[in-house]
Amino acid sequence: MSSKPVVLTGIFHETNGLPKLFQDELEKHFTVIPEDHYAANPENADSQIVAILPWFAKPVVTEEMVKRMPKLVIVASISAGYNHLDVPMLKSHNIRISNTPNVLNDATAEQAVTLMLAAARNTVVGVKIAMGAAQPELNINFHGRQFSGSTVGIVGMGRIGMAVAKRAAAFDCKILYHNRSQRSDEASVGATYFKDLNEMLPLCDFICVVVALTAETRHLFKYEQFSLMKKTAIFCNVSRGDTVDQDGLLKALNENKIHMAALDVTSPEPLPRDHALLKCSNCIIVPHWGSATEKTRLGMCQMAIENTLQALKGDKELTSEVFN
Amino acid sequence: MSSKPVVLTGIFHETNGLPKLFQDELEKHFTVIPEDHYAANPENADSQIVAILPWFAKPVVTEEMVKRMPKLVIVASISAGYNHLDVPMLKSHNIRISNTPNVLNDATAEQAVTLMLAAARNTVVGVKIAMGAAQPELNINFHGRQFSGSTVGIVGMGRIGMAVAKRAAAFDCKILYHNRSQRSDEASVGATYFKDLNEMLPLCDFICVVVALTAETRHLFKYEQFSLMKKTAIFCNVSRGDTVDQDGLLKALNENKIHMAALDVTSPEPLPRDHALLKCSNCIIVPHWGSATEKTRLGMCQMAIENTLQALKGDKELTSEVFN
Repeated sequence: MSSKPVVLTGIFHETNGLPKLFQDELEKHFTVIPEDHYAANPENADSQIVAILPWFAKPVVTEEMVKRMPKLVIVASISAGYNHLDVPMLKSHNIRISNTPNVLNDATAEQAVTLMLAAARNTVVGVKIAMGAAQPELNINFHGRQFSGSTVGIVGMGRIGMAVAKRAAAFDCKILYHNRSQRSDEASVGATYFKDLNEMLPLCDFICVVVALTAETRHLFKYEQFSLMKKTAIFCNVSRGDTVDQDGLLKALNENKIHMAALDVTSPEPLPRDHALLKCSNCIIVPHWGSATEKTRLGMCQMAIENTLQALKGDKELTSEVFN
Repeated sequence: MSSKPVVLTGIFHETNGLPKLFQDELEKHFTVIPEDHYAANPENADSQIVAILPWFAKPVVTEEMVKRMPKLVIVASISAGYNHLDVPMLKSHNIRISNTPNVLNDATAEQAVTLMLAAARNTVVGVKIAMGAAQPELNINFHGRQFSGSTVGIVGMGRIGMAVAKRAAAFDCKILYHNRSQRSDEASVGATYFKDLNEMLPLCDFICVVVALTAETRHLFKYEQFSLMKKTAIFCNVSRGDTVDQDGLLKALNENKIHMAALDVTSPEPLPRDHALLKCSNCIIVPHWGSATEKTRLGMCQMAIENTLQALKGDKELTSEVFN
């Protein structure tokens, strides 16, 4: 075995595990033991592992595992969220924890704008018409909604929300936002604050959800909220599926309470094939790809590596340490 | 017949003619004779028609027709382009001509950004995966290209090109452009001029064609140009299909000389169903919907109406008169 630090990761798998892109990057710095190799012979590895780098919540880091790894210094998750980690347990064993926030802000904001535009301009149905088996009519009047100059309501004005606002402002959109607190820098994107979500919704042509999922934001969007929106409104969610009561959304779509929904996230993911949302012609759903660009994913991997190397050197400050 | 001015238009047809949206607007101001009604009884109408408002080049305005219409004042095309009109012939009969430029700049620029984003982020294939019949794998690593922070080359830097640049700049893109002449206001969008198209192409992650179709720009993009692009490049065309040599594009796509093409325009439109471009998995095509938003189309109709009313009043200046 080489003298590189030994780290435990998820399995390598091009569609459902660590991609080659990450493997190459990780192996520049570490001797990498993927979860399936580890499972075959854990005793040999336990004494050498100095870091665990979970990807899409795998491997699951248990207390038993931590107790078996005397040299473990850090759990460096390749993700912004860390609700898959038992933070108090890790802290009780003096294991450091890091995540990879912010590096995915641009990609996720971009995904939100992509979905709003694609829904507005009928891109998916357009490709079906222009490239489908049936010789199309001219369809010159298949009118889309226009994003440029519209009113966009952003729900959750963190860094991703601000990145959406910055982009929408260049389309001459009027920006409204709902957030726990008013932002002091709202003027930089010309955004107007609404403390009351329900007051904002009737004013929006587009509603863009980028709020973090918490107990307060779970099912923030119910049938009632969709009923408050314009009949021409396009609802976009790039946060987490559970911010939406999907039964309420389904009812609203079937009753044409809104024009369209465009979803990067659902609950669960993927939806079971018999789910009624998949039958809605006024809904587009993509896999949870908010951060899924090569550039951003590589950036996340590199940030996790950076955090790990810093922790192994004993740096007091990591690029992105999780304390709470 | 009412005392409203009598105008000749194309037929009413929701998909292939004048939509209800236009009919309602036109009938506020005019007694409207659609082409099919006119054909049934032209003699009665000829003496009354004061304006012709072509939509998607129909009705075709012939010299015979003009000679039969003694009160005809203006041909007010509901379009930016006017290559479907015989300008010298109309001028020789002292018929005024107007078009509807600029009102569609935002919608067309928006369509370009929509297509670049949808191609980059795999939106069309994403919907197929997330909503298709087959239970999808998680596909967490289906990496897209990132538009944010990329280098975008705009070919044809008129008002639509500038509107694309303004939007791309908000995604922190580096903007390059090729145009007949360098723009004095290029700094307003931070754009860098390339006199030589072939010098610009190897530098671009996205190439966005918004150039007018002329003898010089016909087949501006041949196999050679695609071969100069990055293998990861995304090529987007929202101008006219004939700016591209489609055989060259097809060869480049089949040889993966570029990552993807996203086309609002083809030659012809729609493509025949056996056209090889329709089989390319690295190409998305939508119907020619650059200006196809309700807001913009209504704006075009209203501008044509405005031009007509101004001409009927004898105004010396129309909102948008065609002189050449």
